[in-house]
Amino acid sequence: MTESRFTRLAQLMGQHKINTIALNPGPTLTYLTGLEFHLMERPTVLLYQRGHKPLMILPRLEMIKLESVEFPMHTIPFDDDPATWPDAFKAAFKHMNLEGSRIGVESTRMRFLELNYLQQAAPTSTFVPGEHVLGDLRSIKEDFEIEEMRRAVIIAQDSLKSILPTIREGSTEKDIAAALTMELLRLGSDTELPFSPIVASGPNSANPHAVPTDRKLTSGDLLVIDWGARVNGYCSDLTRTFGIGSIDPELEFVHKTVLKANTAGRDEGKPGIAAGEVDRAARDVIENAGYGKFFTHRTGHGLGMEEHETPYIFAGNSVNLEPGMTYTVEPGIYIPGKGGVRIEDDMVVTTDGSESLSDFPRELTFL
Amino acid sequence: MTESRFTRLAQLMGQHKINTIALNPGPTLTYLTGLEFHLMERPTVLLYQRGHKPLMILPRLEMIKLESVEFPMHTIPFDDDPATWPDAFKAAFKHMNLEGSRIGVESTRMRFLELNYLQQAAPTSTFVPGEHVLGDLRSIKEDFEIEEMRRAVIIAQDSLKSILPTIREGSTEKDIAAALTMELLRLGSDTELPFSPIVASGPNSANPHAVPTDRKLTSGDLLVIDWGARVNGYCSDLTRTFGIGSIDPELEFVHKTVLKANTAGRDEGKPGIAAGEVDRAARDVIENAGYGKFFTHRTGHGLGMEEHETPYIFAGNSVNLEPGMTYTVEPGIYIPGKGGVRIEDDMVVTTDGSESLSDFPRELTFL
Repeated sequence: MTESRFTRLAQLMGQHKINTIALNPGPTLTYLTGLEFHLMERPTVLLYQRGHKPLMILPRLEMIKLESVEFPMHTIPFDDDPATWPDAFKAAFKHMNLEGSRIGVESTRMRFLELNYLQQAAPTSTFVPGEHVLGDLRSIKEDFEIEEMRRAVIIAQDSLKSILPTIREGSTEKDIAAALTMELLRLGSDTELPFSPIVASGPNSANPHAVPTDRKLTSGDLLVIDWGARVNGYCSDLTRTFGIGSIDPELEFVHKTVLKANTAGRDEGKPGIAAGEVDRAARDVIENAGYGKFFTHRTGHGLGMEEHETPYIFAGNSVNLEPGMTYTVEPGIYIPGKGGVRIEDDMVVTTDGSESLSDFPRELTFL
Repeated sequence: MTESRFTRLAQLMGQHKINTIALNPGPTLTYLTGLEFHLMERPTVLLYQRGHKPLMILPRLEMIKLESVEFPMHTIPFDDDPATWPDAFKAAFKHMNLEGSRIGVESTRMRFLELNYLQQAAPTSTFVPGEHVLGDLRSIKEDFEIEEMRRAVIIAQDSLKSILPTIREGSTEKDIAAALTMELLRLGSDTELPFSPIVASGPNSANPHAVPTDRKLTSGDLLVIDWGARVNGYCSDLTRTFGIGSIDPELEFVHKTVLKANTAGRDEGKPGIAAGEVDRAARDVIENAGYGKFFTHRTGHGLGMEEHETPYIFAGNSVNLEPGMTYTVEPGIYIPGKGGVRIEDDMVVTTDGSESLSDFPRELTFL
């Protein structure tokens, strides 16, 4: 599996005229090698040059992990004293003869820590964003990857279904988030969740990236729950919005509008459609209802080994959808001081359209 | 609280001749501002220049979070289309007049994503590792921070105590990790744990950074459990090693040796002692027992809002311990193919010595 992924990587590098890539620990390194490292204060790096063996610079204590690697790889281990690390990087660049190279890196993953060692070892090289190569590498999922995502969606849906009867007036956001997290693990999510559940009630629900607080649910609240599971490294990411007791009729209308936008966004995706068109379809509904300025974020993002990855679903994104791409559709309306609604599903592009992996009821339910 | 922290930051910047710092989301940004952002594909950055108001460049949808900030801050929000982001960074640098500055960043946190926008906006500026300033800023804990860590230790200890009776021959590493994770949350850990528990049995225990597998415990195994809780952002990080059924006498001797090394390391810490001396004290015990080459990592690391931070406890580190510093002591011996032992406690430096926050029994216990 991993050797064929290196082959595909080499093809993409050729298309984008990047001869070398440098990866630090993260999903792409795992995707290529099967190896899992945490991002730590030690600079672990994989270098890959087209037509050559991959090379890893890594802490000596991690060498034991490489026993599972089934293809040829060159390794340069280093010890605990940071004073010795620059030499490891210099040895790597000397081995690979990287003078004057253009080296692609992952913008959201590569850190100043590794970059600084790389730049000192290769002062004549240039480091460039490698998303075109490294994002595309993982954006079209293999069937088994989609199956893992399907399982991650089922675990997420079953978890919320299981704790929903315990949510009532007086429950706190933190209590709900903890109960949901435990249920996700009990039902078989990887212990490393894609993200901690967002549980946001009343005025807090107007913040798309709220962190759960000790606020107690009270009648009239909207309740946004944004949660996901991970299965063998693959994520789900869903959102549903509930009502507590009875709510303001305007908020009911807002919920209806977001549900229409979610449906329009889900219906839009198919091969050959630009990612921006999915955003357009959802946004049109909300703008036509007069709430355009309260839909403050893009419609969605790619999903897979990362909770956010390519393709991003924002206005004007001209990247075309292809079969096997997976992404979220999650329009929202956020009215400061009053509350917010978001409804999010996980989509996969099929040969002639797209399918929602998630089917948890979307209609406004009162708790 | 946060204004006084900016004052201390300004002092440290003066001592280290760094006039400006650039922070992306992470513990230091939270420490200074009280704000929590996740690391995403959008480049959120705080710029701070001595004697000036802090400035934040951030996604417009995050602006709502800034309502909680109680000191003057300049903000430059940007929208979803990445094509507009370079202008936000240029506006920030123009506002702050940063031509030709030396700008300190956090090496283990700052990413190529933010760095690239910063560098394009300020081509005449130089970016340098800011650990001396930014690590030192958080390394001496205030009393309330130590109390949070004490609570995180208690939750971790109580969690393991609670699930220990369920661990037996036939349990899998993954099952134990999931049960422990759920118990940590049930007993009140923040939902974002410092790290997913490491549960490593038999030969897997010889890997210091093992990931839990489906392997079933069997008589003769060593079982390493490395786990922690988080309370209001502050971490604990503990390790204990157990025996399953009856084990090889050599492994019993290895456990005794690591326990002696742990005790020697814990006893060494006090104000004015170099961090490297703590490593020396623990390592001497293991080397004298003939297992030096199997102690493949440093003795410990600082602990606080991050699970790894300054001071690092490695051979030759000349940083002196000061009252309020917190770090782990976690010597280990790892024999490939046979198994490993690690015993880890969380220490705080007091006015005349050091105290272990953790007291979970360290002796070899059989399950």
